[in-house]
Parts: sequence; C-alpha cells; structure tokens
Amino acid sequence: MTRRNLLYAQSGGVTAVINATAAAAIETARRHPQAIGAIYGARHGILGALAEDLVDTAALDDAALQALALTPGGAFGSCRFDLDPPADNPAQYERLFAVLAAHDIGYFLYNGGNGSMDTVAKISAAARDRGYPLVAIGVPKTVDNDIEGSDCSPGFGSAAKYAATGMLEAGMDLASMSTRKGRVFVLEVMGRNAGWLAAATALAARGQEDAPPHIILLPEVPFDDEAFLARVQQVVERLGYCTVTVSEGIRRADGSLVMEQDHDAKGHVQLGGAGQCVARLIHARLGYKHHWAIPDYLQRAAGHLVSATDLAHARAVGAAAVEYAVAGRDAVMPAIVRESDEPYRWTVEPVDVRAIANLERLVPPHFIREDGLHVTGAALRYLRPLVEGEVVRPWRGGLPDYPAPGLPAVPRRLPPQP
Amino acid sequence: MTRRNLLYAQSGGVTAVINATAAAAIETARRHPQAIGAIYGARHGILGALAEDLVDTAALDDAALQALALTPGGAFGSCRFDLDPPADNPAQYERLFAVLAAHDIGYFLYNGGNGSMDTVAKISAAARDRGYPLVAIGVPKTVDNDIEGSDCSPGFGSAAKYAATGMLEAGMDLASMSTRKGRVFVLEVMGRNAGWLAAATALAARGQEDAPPHIILLPEVPFDDEAFLARVQQVVERLGYCTVTVSEGIRRADGSLVMEQDHDAKGHVQLGGAGQCVARLIHARLGYKHHWAIPDYLQRAAGHLVSATDLAHARAVGAAAVEYAVAGRDAVMPAIVRESDEPYRWTVEPVDVRAIANLERLVPPHFIREDGLHVTGAALRYLRPLVEGEVVRPWRGGLPDYPAPGLPAVPRRLPPQP
Repeated sequence: MTRRNLLYAQSGGVTAVINATAAAAIETARRHPQAIGAIYGARHGILGALAEDLVDTAALDDAALQALALTPGGAFGSCRFDLDPPADNPAQYERLFAVLAAHDIGYFLYNGGNGSMDTVAKISAAARDRGYPLVAIGVPKTVDNDIEGSDCSPGFGSAAKYAATGMLEAGMDLASMSTRKGRVFVLEVMGRNAGWLAAATALAARGQEDAPPHIILLPEVPFDDEAFLARVQQVVERLGYCTVTVSEGIRRADGSLVMEQDHDAKGHVQLGGAGQCVARLIHARLGYKHHWAIPDYLQRAAGHLVSATDLAHARAVGAAAVEYAVAGRDAVMPAIVRESDEPYRWTVEPVDVRAIANLERLVPPHFIREDGLHVTGAALRYLRPLVEGEVVRPWRGGLPDYPAPGLPAVPRRLPPQP
Repeated sequence: MTRRNLLYAQSGGVTAVINATAAAAIETARRHPQAIGAIYGARHGILGALAEDLVDTAALDDAALQALALTPGGAFGSCRFDLDPPADNPAQYERLFAVLAAHDIGYFLYNGGNGSMDTVAKISAAARDRGYPLVAIGVPKTVDNDIEGSDCSPGFGSAAKYAATGMLEAGMDLASMSTRKGRVFVLEVMGRNAGWLAAATALAARGQEDAPPHIILLPEVPFDDEAFLARVQQVVERLGYCTVTVSEGIRRADGSLVMEQDHDAKGHVQLGGAGQCVARLIHARLGYKHHWAIPDYLQRAAGHLVSATDLAHARAVGAAAVEYAVAGRDAVMPAIVRESDEPYRWTVEPVDVRAIANLERLVPPHFIREDGLHVTGAALRYLRPLVEGEVVRPWRGGLPDYPAPGLPAVPRRLPPQP
C-alpha cells in the first residue's frame, strides 16, 4: 500500500461541533499509518488548498485533540467559496492539483454542507480526468440540517438545543413580565430556506399546548399576515402573552422576504431581520409590547451547550470519512441513518456525493401542522433525540476553556498562487 | 413574639437567579416559626399585593425549593409599576394596607432594582404613618448591576457570564469565517444607562490584546462615529475581522440614542437596536460584511449558564433579608460587600433603602480605558469573580428541567380592588 498524505478542510458556516469531526478524523487517520502519512489541514477550506496555505496536525497530542473536539467555530478556518466549473477555469484546477501533488495528498476530506458536496464531486471528477490518484470524501456539517441523504446534519443538534433552550428560558422570562397588557417575544433563528432550527424550538413546549413557542414560522410556509396576527391575538387573549419563533428566511406568497418589508407605526419602510419585522408588525397592528432576539452566531457557536448526540454524530462522520478514504471509496459522504426514534439508534452509511450535491432538504409537509403555524408530533419525534445529552466540558475563569490548537504552517513548495 | 405572615414579591426585569433569592427567603423564613407564620408571594409584584392576588408557598417541599432556585424568570411574576407618592393617591395605600392587614402581613420583602427600593421606602414610611406594624425589606436583583450601595447585584453575574461566553464563542465563529474581506460582528447587550454587561464581555479576551471583544461601547461614554470607525478599521486591517460589544443605551454627545439614528447604504433613516445601527454604520462607511446579535431576554434568562458566584449572592440576599425582617430592621436592603478580589471574599451587610432608592450605579471612570472604547484592568479585576463557577443542574430531554412550582392562590378576604 502506498502511503499518501491526507488533507482536511472546513467549508461554509461553522458549527459548535465541526472541530469534533476534525478531531475524530485526525485520530482515525493516525490509526492507519500504513495508508496515511502526514495529516494536514487547509486554512479556510478550498481557498487554503489553492493558496497552499496548509497546516500540520502532527503537534496535536491526545489532550489537544480532546480540547479541539469541544471547541466551537472552525479551528482550521472556513470559507464561502465554490470552485468554478472545470471548463470555465482550468487554471484553478491546475493550481489545486499542483498543490495536492506538491504535498502528495492522496486523501481529501471536505467538511461542509450542500455546496461542499458539489466541490467534492468536482474535485473527484477532475482527479479522475487527469489521472491524479485521489480519494475525495465529503463530510457533513451544517446547523441548517438541510443536507440530503442524511437523517440529520452534524451541527444541527447543538444549534437546535441552543434555540430550544433559548425559547424555553426567554418564554419563562416573558411569562413573568406579562401583566395586563399583551406582550410578545419573537426569536429569530437561522434558516434561509429550511426551517429545521425554528421547528426545533417546539421542543421547548415539552408537549404542553400553551407553552412556548406558541407559533413557529417556517420558510417552507408562505407568510400570511392576517392568519398570523389572528393567531397571535388569540394566544395573547388566552395567556396574556405570545412567543413566536421565526426562521430568518420566511417569505410571503409572492416570494418576497418578510425581512425586506417592515411596518413601523408611522408607516416608514424598515429594513431588518425577519424577527424584528414580525415583532414590529405585531406591535403596529395589535399594539402589544414587543421584544425580539436574534442570536445570530451565538446559536451556531454555543460550545457551552453542545448536544451529546450531535457530538457523537460529528465524531462518527469524521471517523467514517477516514475509513472510507482508506478503503478507496471516492466521492462519498458518511450519512447518519436513523434506525429507531426511541430508543434512539443510528448508524453511518456512505452516500454518493454526486446524488446529493447542491440539494436542500426542507422540513417535509408531514412535519408541519395543517395551519402552517407550528409543527406536528412526527416532527417532535424526529427532533427529540437530536438535542439529547449534555457534555461535561472544561471551564476556566467562569467561561468555557477553548485553548487554541497548535497548527504550524506546512512549508510551501510552490510559487505563490498566480 | 407575635407571629406574623410574610409577603415576598418580585419586581422589574427578572433574572436567571431571582428565584434562588425567593427559595432562600422561603427556606430561611421556615427556620423562624416563632416569628413567621405563612409565607406568601404576591403575583406580579406590588400589583398582586394591590389586587390581593397572593399565592402560598407552603406546598413547596425541599425538592421543589431546590428546583425553584435553579429556575430562571420570576416564578411569582414580576411587574413594572411604581406606587404613586402617598399624597397623590391615598386610596392606593389604603388598599395596599387593607390587603396586608387582611392577611396579617408583618414582613414585606420586595425583590427588585432601584425603583423597587423606592417602593420599599414608600411602604415603610406609609406603614409608620398609619401605625401599621410592618418590616419592609428591599432585596436586590438586576442584570444591569446598577444598584447603589452593593458591590454587585444578584442576577448580573449570570447575565455577564452569558454575555462573555457569547462574545467568546461568536468571536471564534467570526475568526473562522474571516478570509480576505473584513468582517465585523456586533453583540448588543442590555444596559440603557449602565454599561456593566457590555464591560463584562471583556472577560472573553482573557487578557489577550487581539482577542474579542476588540471594542466595547458603553452608555457612559458618548459615541463618536469617527473615533469608533477608525478603531474598527485599524482592527480589521490587523486581524481581518473585528468584534464589538454595544450597550443598548449608547448615546451621542448630543444625548440622542444611537439606536434612533441609523444609516443604511441608501441613506434611509432606520429604526433599530443600537447593535444593528452600529453594524450598519460600519457596513455603510467601511464596506465590511456585518453580523449582529441581540440576545435580548436570552441573556437574562439563561438558567443553563448561571454563575455559581451569582447564585450564591442571590441566595445570600434572600436569606439575609429574612434575618433582617425577623430582627425588625425596617427599610434596609442586604448588600454584597466585597472583601477581596482574589481570592474572592464577600459578605452581606444591610444598607438603608432610602439612601439608595432610584439611584443608578454607573461604570466608574477608572474602569473605562482612556480612549473610551474598552475597559481597564481594574474593571477586569472587579468583574472576574462575578462570573466564576458553574452550577450542575438537572436536564430533561436535552433541555434544562424547569418544573413549574406549585403555588396555590391564597383565598381572598376582601372585595375586588376598586
């Protein structure tokens, strides 16, 4: 067996557990010394591969790998960058394969979402075209949970745990503060096209009908002002308050983003997030006091609130990716396969990246309540195990301890990128 | 000794640990059966006292009190309501004392902020005026940390831990995502007049010069667009990204709130939170990609991220308040007194509520860096112990377990409030 080097890189929006995938990949790669030589990372995804901006993971000892696995964000740096189609930009591929060849990369692991699976498919095809011996593997991650072919995406469970905990806690705060006048609280979560994170906040209610969140607005359902406002009013009249989860990407029936159309009391047009727009709409039309929260990066970086299930998924796909690589299974992605909801049982199976690249897995109709303003029991059964379990982690000075991993640069062997 | 009943109530914005104060007050009151009979709560603060909307804590067993102490929000309900001056509204005081007398209330504990201390002072004076035997005690709480006479306010340490953790984690996310173009992240935290929570995010940097937050905007310092933008640009040019913490209440030198003056790229006037305005200002003037987070209620309700120090403070003031009540120390508030920074040592002492009512303790000048854009080492020494320590808490189904306390209504003895 020829010993080749491995290159791992991170792409797209990062998560609380993407580094757990990296740590598991490194650990697993070290268990294949006959097949795998050096284990490198690219800085900022494929950009680092193009720029020959590589780092060496050799200095990470077991303690450092353990710490890395519990560190949010992308320790190698991520990017939002897609390779051009090979025919449009052959020079880009020339450069990429020059870098791979210069460092004898035989295994390429790309840890990302739908777009990254496309990158893997492109690189795999390009390698075959030029006869460069490479095994390219996609490794799933995204808080959006929208990767096709996998029951869920590593990163989602922890962000879902964060969002559901936030709704639970903020809902209790709102209930305390609600006296005579109606009060509403709107939580805006990530999800431009897929409402998985918004749906997950339904877990906060624990099946109680009147518990927050009272309304969930998904991008899968066209936003209807009147139906929504009628429901808000109904809830406030019964409880004195109302909590709403909004996906950032909700749209009206005409396809326009709600965040682009805002209503303030004076009729000014406002630009803002969807949560702010919805909160203002309620205030303008129903007169209730309104609060809104936009956790933004906090929801996908919350290493202090990782789901143990999600962490296990993240590690499993990292380990499986290396096993597939060593087995020469080119152009596949380790996917989570659910075997049972309760007790939750799952396994990992390879899927062809070409079959899933650039697709988007949306919240399916049977997970959405008939009125479009909440989710179903089937959705809850799906979501419940994904946030399960807490992770005991190190703290320092009252904050999570996230030591920076030592990742020295790999000496360059090529002239700078043209 | 005459046995009288005790009435406890919550006021103002609630916190992650206000119920720990309640639990400690109840536990302590039960240890004084000669002095204290029933232990009641008023629903929604002084509003519940006026409405004779009282609940009985007798059904809370030890397990329920333990759970209550780890539950965020105000379990009794809170309010934003100030009593009128007695001369303006004698009927209000007539009603209040009729309720107190109907339930033989001899001890009144009001758990709130600066305004609540004023309520305590008013009730104490009114009781004396009419010869009603009452011991009225103020019990401090506020995430704003702006209560005079106390080294810190219970509730602040946990919100500070949340805000600093959020900046730490989001800062790591931002660093991962920052490639060639500059990126900024703005975290807006609570604080209309006092910048304590914004200052606390400085803990995220752990003393490293280039670590987030790079800039902290406090309401104590007039906002200067040009100086701020110059600093952002400087940071982005060095690091590729910049993180900013903004107090919601920052103002320009002319006294106008920054949140009222927004700049979008097209010159439209926007209404928004201070964080959004500052992020948009950066984007409009420097062209950097911008993200902003507004945790809103999430930051003060984060029972999952309580500071052990803060929890200890919250319990201590609840216990001390009852001890003062039994000792007949009318119109005082238990204050946290710091004895040493490191090791952190503190005690609780009574202060006269009349000396502190309606005052606001701002971040002092020696805690603010000379350029007004960050805090000093003295601030860090003050802040550090307040976020220290994690609390092991029960979880259920992947979310914090917050069982609702059983608080049956006390039968009414009076006709409804006129």
